[in-house]
Amino acid sequence: MRWIAYMLFGVMTLTGMASYIGLAPAHADGGSAPVLEGKLPAGYRDWRLISVAHEEGDLNDLRAVLGNDVAIKAYREGRLPFPDGAIIARLAWKYVPSEENNQAFGRAQSFVAGTATNVQFMVKDSTKYASTGGWGFAQFNDGKSVDATALSGCFGCHVPVKARDYIFTKYVP
Amino acid sequence: MRWIAYMLFGVMTLTGMASYIGLAPAHADGGSAPVLEGKLPAGYRDWRLISVAHEEGDLNDLRAVLGNDVAIKAYREGRLPFPDGAIIARLAWKYVPSEENNQAFGRAQSFVAGTATNVQFMVKDSTKYASTGGWGFAQFNDGKSVDATALSGCFGCHVPVKARDYIFTKYVP
Repeated sequence: MRWIAYMLFGVMTLTGMASYIGLAPAHADGGSAPVLEGKLPAGYRDWRLISVAHEEGDLNDLRAVLGNDVAIKAYREGRLPFPDGAIIARLAWKYVPSEENNQAFGRAQSFVAGTATNVQFMVKDSTKYASTGGWGFAQFNDGKSVDATALSGCFGCHVPVKARDYIFTKYVP
Repeated sequence: MRWIAYMLFGVMTLTGMASYIGLAPAHADGGSAPVLEGKLPAGYRDWRLISVAHEEGDLNDLRAVLGNDVAIKAYREGRLPFPDGAIIARLAWKYVPSEENNQAFGRAQSFVAGTATNVQFMVKDSTKYASTGGWGFAQFNDGKSVDATALSGCFGCHVPVKARDYIFTKYVP
């Protein structure tokens, strides 16, 4: 009967590991594959605009939030939660003054998008990312996927807007 | 012969009025029809993003600049001047702090798009708008076309960027 004991131990170990992986922040999405398979989604720069924002402080950026067709449709219909397949992209660029614009306006008041900083995505898959509200989080620096460990804190920050399916950005007309 | 004198006077008056209208800044585009026929171009809210900006001062807004297919293609190919048919839209919204975002970030640093202010367009037609660098200018407040007189100053402000075909906004990746 020793082989049964070994087999049971093996199964329990694997189960334990799986549970551990499932709970670890780096894999809070419940899967081991990186969100978006570590690749920038094709054509995301062509997606439609949801809204814009400015972050001061360390970020010091101007940002645009874009949505793929599924996300835009849900936003416009006021549909919550977002359906599987929705992807929301947050692009950001350094916040820089524009001397050219200031001269045209006759006063220092104009800030424009400078160098791109990074691009972040939220991908809706209610099964795959069930443990994080159905959303997988991804970030790309210079087109390269950021390791999942660095994104383990993403979901926690979005919990306060659970009522809007964890999405901060509201659609503007 | 008095009726001929009356008629000639009438014709001269009408001609004079027409000349005056043609020279008035309100019609610097050389045409009497309002740019875009006074209507918001269909589907402009779906156009692709060129860039974003923040204007302080009296404007105090966040803005997104979008382009129709012709404009986006020209931007991406670095084509100057923009071909006829290019339309560039500038959307703007009040610049408002987001308490919700600030709480998530743990500091006051976040500003988002509030109420829409107005939407402006530059429409390329090198024949129709030859006297203003080939661009016609339009603005809509709450969807209503602003009278051409109010836009007579637009072109003058764009002359400093004549080398970029009078367009201030640069495309960001």
